[in-house]
Amino acid sequence: MDNKIRIGLFGFGVVGQGIYQVVSKAPNAHAEIRRICVRNLAKPRSVEAPGELFTDRVADILDDPGIDLIVEVIDNADASYKIVCDALRRGIPVVSGNKAMIARHLPELIALQQEHDTALLYDASSCGSIPVIRNLEEYYDNDLLLEVKGILNGSSNYILSRVFDHGEDYASALAKAQALGFAESDPTFDIEGYDSLFKLVIITMHALGVYVRPEDIFTFGISSIHDSDIRYAREKGVKIKLVAQVAKVGNGRFTMFVMPEFVRPGKYIYSVDDEYNGVVIRGECYDRQFMFGKGAGSLPTASSILSDIMARRHDYRYEYKKMHYIDRPVYTTDIPLRIYVRYSSTPIPDLLPFTAIHEQYLSAESCYVIGDINLADLIAHRHILSALDVFVVNTSSFFEHLD
Amino acid sequence: MDNKIRIGLFGFGVVGQGIYQVVSKAPNAHAEIRRICVRNLAKPRSVEAPGELFTDRVADILDDPGIDLIVEVIDNADASYKIVCDALRRGIPVVSGNKAMIARHLPELIALQQEHDTALLYDASSCGSIPVIRNLEEYYDNDLLLEVKGILNGSSNYILSRVFDHGEDYASALAKAQALGFAESDPTFDIEGYDSLFKLVIITMHALGVYVRPEDIFTFGISSIHDSDIRYAREKGVKIKLVAQVAKVGNGRFTMFVMPEFVRPGKYIYSVDDEYNGVVIRGECYDRQFMFGKGAGSLPTASSILSDIMARRHDYRYEYKKMHYIDRPVYTTDIPLRIYVRYSSTPIPDLLPFTAIHEQYLSAESCYVIGDINLADLIAHRHILSALDVFVVNTSSFFEHLD
Repeated sequence: MDNKIRIGLFGFGVVGQGIYQVVSKAPNAHAEIRRICVRNLAKPRSVEAPGELFTDRVADILDDPGIDLIVEVIDNADASYKIVCDALRRGIPVVSGNKAMIARHLPELIALQQEHDTALLYDASSCGSIPVIRNLEEYYDNDLLLEVKGILNGSSNYILSRVFDHGEDYASALAKAQALGFAESDPTFDIEGYDSLFKLVIITMHALGVYVRPEDIFTFGISSIHDSDIRYAREKGVKIKLVAQVAKVGNGRFTMFVMPEFVRPGKYIYSVDDEYNGVVIRGECYDRQFMFGKGAGSLPTASSILSDIMARRHDYRYEYKKMHYIDRPVYTTDIPLRIYVRYSSTPIPDLLPFTAIHEQYLSAESCYVIGDINLADLIAHRHILSALDVFVVNTSSFFEHLD
Repeated sequence: MDNKIRIGLFGFGVVGQGIYQVVSKAPNAHAEIRRICVRNLAKPRSVEAPGELFTDRVADILDDPGIDLIVEVIDNADASYKIVCDALRRGIPVVSGNKAMIARHLPELIALQQEHDTALLYDASSCGSIPVIRNLEEYYDNDLLLEVKGILNGSSNYILSRVFDHGEDYASALAKAQALGFAESDPTFDIEGYDSLFKLVIITMHALGVYVRPEDIFTFGISSIHDSDIRYAREKGVKIKLVAQVAKVGNGRFTMFVMPEFVRPGKYIYSVDDEYNGVVIRGECYDRQFMFGKGAGSLPTASSILSDIMARRHDYRYEYKKMHYIDRPVYTTDIPLRIYVRYSSTPIPDLLPFTAIHEQYLSAESCYVIGDINLADLIAHRHILSALDVFVVNTSSFFEHLD
């Protein structure tokens, strides 16, 4: 009679508990959490759920023929990968929020969906409650797309807002982000840019139909930010934001990277503060569109998962249409960037193969250089960057002339 | 081999010419304009298209078995209605941008789609290039939705920006909007709020699954704005924006109206200037999401039409799922509002049934009153408002406490 969609839920942390709450608030979802698999049954939770729902055996969900859909929000990419693959192989559709797992295994996960005629939805994996993936897949489905660029990580953005706008120190801002539940349990994911990177990999698949491996993409986070960087940005009247972007760069090529950027007032992402995410989608005919919303937190992420659950009621799946496009653009790192590098003692201008140096500032406390460098050279030297006390900020923009 | 989607295009004005351009820029759309029906074959056009494409006979498209899809962007709601109905009755899917026609005939158009097992898509009808309809239909498809509120008319917003931010006079701002192609050929549609109203009717169907007739909704435009209104707003540090909103107001009810509003800095829509549109979608768990983009103009609208054309390749249609929801909210106008009314000579406080008056200002040049009034009473008195030199501004917000 009441053909409820019966859900097997993996994970009952911040997001899992949010899903449990959101499903109970949405009668028109016709969804029911039938079983919850957790690693540690004894762990206390702030959200109450009937004890008989819980199990610590994965098979109790995967082997249950009464389960229509698996929702997977556990905090371990390897375990998540195994569960998702097992489910897809059995033809059980899955909704997942695990961006690291999805970004690393996307080609295989696409093949599994096709082979077993089932679906994996993961809109919640990128930008929490903002429907970026769905819109790129369904709406911006044309050759006009030029660039997707934005603040994809709520936690690092929250930290930058506290440090930058409220004068707090980095460590206390990070602790606050963790206490509020924005930060991943491993905060390096957020602050080193990996969370943004994984989201960018997923976005690029749905924006351009091309998969690029995370390890082939330049990623620089915010953990090495110094007071002098903040002072520099303030003097110039700009903010520092951790920005992920994928952009067509002409001749059938595109590039992508994750890097702090100096953002001028007037730019859409300038006003994206705290735990919010904001994504600018630029196209040839529609100029720029901006989507803005809560990108992190229990309930925003859970409401996005709910949208995926409801999409499954109508048998929605990603078609990955753009993978079959003619003239898909090709990933390139052979592209000049203008960057700011703040350094202390090491002679960065000698260590990095700048093609031109535009500014250099030297002082006992800290130095910086602004110069042009090829992205490929930057990637080749990332071991140097990660070993030293440097902070790298992108100052270039591919479509500046259009703004 | 190359299974192109063959389009019969009705209308070759600003938007029609944009569609012709955009389709040619998007090879992956696999779309082809096969025939263009115009009223006047002799009219010169700025975009060149081969002469043999044109016809002035509707039947040349409707009777052509080689046409897969009709795209209708003519500027006449009655003619549009006839073409769309005829096409749907023949089972030919239609993409339309005609908000007036759709808003007035939505229940019948939904029935026709079901009866003849075909589709009518109209994402371009609301907010040009911003995918509001599609997202409400597919993504915010749950009970959590609280409110959709925004600036839905690019032309009136452009005029308000010119008048308000640039100190231009109303007439020259309107002329500029028309010259730039933002304004409808009948500018009263834009400036009297009807364009926003029609979009709001369509949005409400996809947001809440309920159809409300345009004539049952309070609509007040911007044509009667005076210098004293602008001065008042400036003194208070707010902007005047023409805002359309639909909001749940408790006890299973919702309300909706189109009215100028005093918008404070910090509100998302405060920064929506010029011909841009911005829509805030508020939900119980995801707080507020903001979508922002070009809402008017040839190419932005055409790119939205292109998204609908491409959606038809995958047999996409609106399911109108929310029409079948349990406990759909019920439209009410029995709701208190606090409004500002600027008037000249007539004693507005005596003419309108305010339940409370909070402020009154009298001077030789102009007067205003701020008071509480029931929306139903405001609707009952709209003949008075339209006959007099008054300007009405909403000062209430249903979810102020959540911001």
